[in-house]
Amino acid sequence: MNLGRPREFDIDRTLESATRQFWAVGYEATSLQDLLRVMRLSKSSLYQTFGNKQQLFIQCLDHYRKSMVVQLEEKLAANNSAKGFLREFLEDIVAEAQQKTGRKGCLLVNTANELSQRIPEVQLAVAEGAGAVLKVFHRAMELAVEQGDIASSACLESLVNFYFSGASGLRTMVKAGVDKRELEPVVALIMDSIK
Amino acid sequence: MNLGRPREFDIDRTLESATRQFWAVGYEATSLQDLLRVMRLSKSSLYQTFGNKQQLFIQCLDHYRKSMVVQLEEKLAANNSAKGFLREFLEDIVAEAQQKTGRKGCLLVNTANELSQRIPEVQLAVAEGAGAVLKVFHRAMELAVEQGDIASSACLESLVNFYFSGASGLRTMVKAGVDKRELEPVVALIMDSIK
Repeated sequence: MNLGRPREFDIDRTLESATRQFWAVGYEATSLQDLLRVMRLSKSSLYQTFGNKQQLFIQCLDHYRKSMVVQLEEKLAANNSAKGFLREFLEDIVAEAQQKTGRKGCLLVNTANELSQRIPEVQLAVAEGAGAVLKVFHRAMELAVEQGDIASSACLESLVNFYFSGASGLRTMVKAGVDKRELEPVVALIMDSIK
Repeated sequence: MNLGRPREFDIDRTLESATRQFWAVGYEATSLQDLLRVMRLSKSSLYQTFGNKQQLFIQCLDHYRKSMVVQLEEKLAANNSAKGFLREFLEDIVAEAQQKTGRKGCLLVNTANELSQRIPEVQLAVAEGAGAVLKVFHRAMELAVEQGDIASSACLESLVNFYFSGASGLRTMVKAGVDKRELEPVVALIMDSIK
């Protein structure tokens, strides 16, 4: 026994590998064998560090949420126009429609639709994820008001939810196989309504 | 052996039971045992009539699409206002948010997000389902133009896709646990943009 020995693997990287696996094929379709393979862990290390499959999945959802929020905040900070940032996020979703196969979408959207209603802990993690992402979009809209691109009288709460439902809907349409050319005018219509 | 004997079960009802099972918990989480139980079939009857799990699921998606289209067409025909029909469809989605648990959403949206990208046959059935539903909404918009509720100059293709992405997004937000009160203004914003 060597309890003082540091773990021989990087928890964040291992979590990232598991997250990518769940993201690519979904929660149910991911087997313990898949997880051991991509995480390069023994069964006992996996259980000791992350718990069972469901507990690991919750940690992956948290990991995904944090990465996503960091990425969004960086993009928002790098963009001169907050409304431009919001438009680009939708354009990136639609760009995935060009891929013939393997459109992964968003892990949070996938999970909301796959199983959030069956497992309360998962529903909580999805709701927390949605809340964190909504917050970034809300901040972007406040900035857009300051920049004169949204009327100061607009109800930002409703606009944010409207934008978010449009973004989630685009995700679903991309996964359902709708063509990029058909989705581009939808981005324009969503953005036109945010004023 | 009694090959001439008619099947002792109603194919449509049996398919309906399987559809409800897949709809409630998803494709992957549905086991063969679940299917045998809800369909009240022996394993050999199931395989003889419907093929394997994946083949059965495709038939369920087709069954769901047909039922959904019939229901939508009946509602559209019964409504004096085509725009009212479109609004009510969104309101019905949002109403599901009042349920504390077991928000099933839409089988096509769930499937698009759960696994359409992994199984080409499923992706095809989802795309066919989305196409059939979009057709009803397109007809509703044509009627709304005739009724003077949408400007005749509007690009209906884009409006239909915009509406559909809004509806799919609302589905996801309901499943992610967003409150009904937060979603009602989104319905108003979507409908305000359809003009």
